[in-house]
Amino acid sequence: MSSEHTIATVVGGGVIGLSVAWRAAAAGWPVRLLDPEPVRGGASWLAGGMLAPVTEAWPGEEDVLRLGEESLRRWPQFARDLSAAGIDPGLAGHGTIVLAFDSADAGHLEILAGHLRSLGRAVESLTSREARRLAPGIGAVRGGLHVPGDLAVDNRKLLTALAEAGAQQGVEFRRERLASLDDVPGPVVLAAGAWTGQLHPSLAQAVRPLKGEILRLRPRRGCLPPPPHTVRAIVEGRPIYLVPRADGELVLGATQYEAGFDQAVTARGVRELLEGAERILPGITEYELVETAAGLRAGSRDALPYVGEVGEGVYVATGHHRNGLLMAPVTADAVLAWLAGEAPPAEIAAASPARLEKERV
Amino acid sequence: MSSEHTIATVVGGGVIGLSVAWRAAAAGWPVRLLDPEPVRGGASWLAGGMLAPVTEAWPGEEDVLRLGEESLRRWPQFARDLSAAGIDPGLAGHGTIVLAFDSADAGHLEILAGHLRSLGRAVESLTSREARRLAPGIGAVRGGLHVPGDLAVDNRKLLTALAEAGAQQGVEFRRERLASLDDVPGPVVLAAGAWTGQLHPSLAQAVRPLKGEILRLRPRRGCLPPPPHTVRAIVEGRPIYLVPRADGELVLGATQYEAGFDQAVTARGVRELLEGAERILPGITEYELVETAAGLRAGSRDALPYVGEVGEGVYVATGHHRNGLLMAPVTADAVLAWLAGEAPPAEIAAASPARLEKERV
Repeated sequence: MSSEHTIATVVGGGVIGLSVAWRAAAAGWPVRLLDPEPVRGGASWLAGGMLAPVTEAWPGEEDVLRLGEESLRRWPQFARDLSAAGIDPGLAGHGTIVLAFDSADAGHLEILAGHLRSLGRAVESLTSREARRLAPGIGAVRGGLHVPGDLAVDNRKLLTALAEAGAQQGVEFRRERLASLDDVPGPVVLAAGAWTGQLHPSLAQAVRPLKGEILRLRPRRGCLPPPPHTVRAIVEGRPIYLVPRADGELVLGATQYEAGFDQAVTARGVRELLEGAERILPGITEYELVETAAGLRAGSRDALPYVGEVGEGVYVATGHHRNGLLMAPVTADAVLAWLAGEAPPAEIAAASPARLEKERV
Repeated sequence: MSSEHTIATVVGGGVIGLSVAWRAAAAGWPVRLLDPEPVRGGASWLAGGMLAPVTEAWPGEEDVLRLGEESLRRWPQFARDLSAAGIDPGLAGHGTIVLAFDSADAGHLEILAGHLRSLGRAVESLTSREARRLAPGIGAVRGGLHVPGDLAVDNRKLLTALAEAGAQQGVEFRRERLASLDDVPGPVVLAAGAWTGQLHPSLAQAVRPLKGEILRLRPRRGCLPPPPHTVRAIVEGRPIYLVPRADGELVLGATQYEAGFDQAVTARGVRELLEGAERILPGITEYELVETAAGLRAGSRDALPYVGEVGEGVYVATGHHRNGLLMAPVTADAVLAWLAGEAPPAEIAAASPARLEKERV
């Protein structure tokens, strides 16, 4: 490695930037991370933490599934390495239950189940009774799917752990924005999420903010406890998920719409999430509403992120949509491979920003 | 006044305690106010700020109406005195619109209007069109009432102004609880809201917490502005009010139920308030949800507060239900009269805690 005297700069202190910075510092790079508000300032802090490539899968998006599954495969080691640095990132292997409330939902799940089985993935169809046994307290469902291989992570523990592990490896955190790419001495990794489009001309029209509202709830005394699994459903056309945390908190997400860089929590978003959650878990009405928040996911033009080189020593790692936490390990490994002049994981090729050039031709 | 060398102790830093402390200090008493979290710690900080005895009126509760109206009459001077101390408490004279969404609501409003007219109060019946002209943006209503004499106050400006005015008059704020009545040197005024029942045996079974959730919203760019008046309605059996603030904020309240001393904001409370508000003002869905909060009103056994002497030099001023802000001026004037050995406002007699003794007989 010729990098021993070059500083690597990471722009963005969300899950991607923190993962890259920690891994790069552990690999021997002097690393500087720029973010006016690392850890807590972006979409990663507000995420549900589902590591669920399979239940997010859909026919025609096999590249996304492959990349997600490759990253999921890397997650346990990633979590062990972090734990070794001293902070448990709260990885949970409780699987996902996907619920159907009407015949249209059930039809949707059949398509999903068939697709996943054709790809050789483990998926189990559930009757109403089986679903209620796996997730006590759920409402009147028609049926569901159980995907046992999905993981979940406590996003806030994870981010805290990544920052701490990075600091232990000597990452220098600077609470500032990138002034100009011209002033950066060595390689630079642009991982500023929805804001990355403002950092490099190749991404100017390619990355856009996808607003999402998310709530955190906590059972009060006498309430039914949260379900032991991640529970997902489409309620009146809106996808809703409930992710239990080890500390008893329940994350309820998430709206998704385009509203520019607006990050206001709206009355509509909160009302829709609460209504949807009541359908899934009627007892949630008596839970305490602990937090309402809104963040901006980084959307790409398709369902894949942009991870690759966009200029001499300039790498991007953004556009992960809802999958930033899931795809952090494979993204960090890919960036580290490029920095070291090695071959990246094969699955990252589909995420190359070179596909933007093809669109322009 | 023989009090020139005696300290008056006020327990509770909500609107009642702050009003009494300010008025007593201005009248020459050395005043000590005890509250672990004055100004922001109690129900007054979360109130809507309606000063609306008339639209709260109901046949059979004439004593409440009389007391409320007497206090309302004292409000403009109370506000002027506060303003003279330097801080405008944000008194607004925009009246109240009460809306009816169905024929049952309309029947309810007819009873209310007839009752108020029989008492000689100003009240105007509104057609749907008239209601929409007075409050642009409201949903499909059947009709309404306009009560032009109602006032509203910005509760947070008011509390801040009261604390500042009290401090200017030398009120000593101690961030502590009352240890024991035995240690208090001079007269003491128990104004600790829902907690007052714990301070004196005569109130132990008489004051209870009435939990309420309340939201604050703010129009985002492009949103319809809040209505210029306080707007109230019963939506699916639940009373909802929207109170506009001079700074553009809109207060949306309030749930009411008994849950002991629990102050958790529940999913149900937030959902019900948002649903009700959407019925009244459909455009509110795009407003930013700025704050969710829950507080504990002090309930009495009937609809009246307890204001009077319960022992030698021990006064209570609590149990104001939803009317603490409204009734603060008349309550403070009554307590001040007793401290000075003068006659209190006649209307306060109905609020005497002596009625608890009668119940026991």
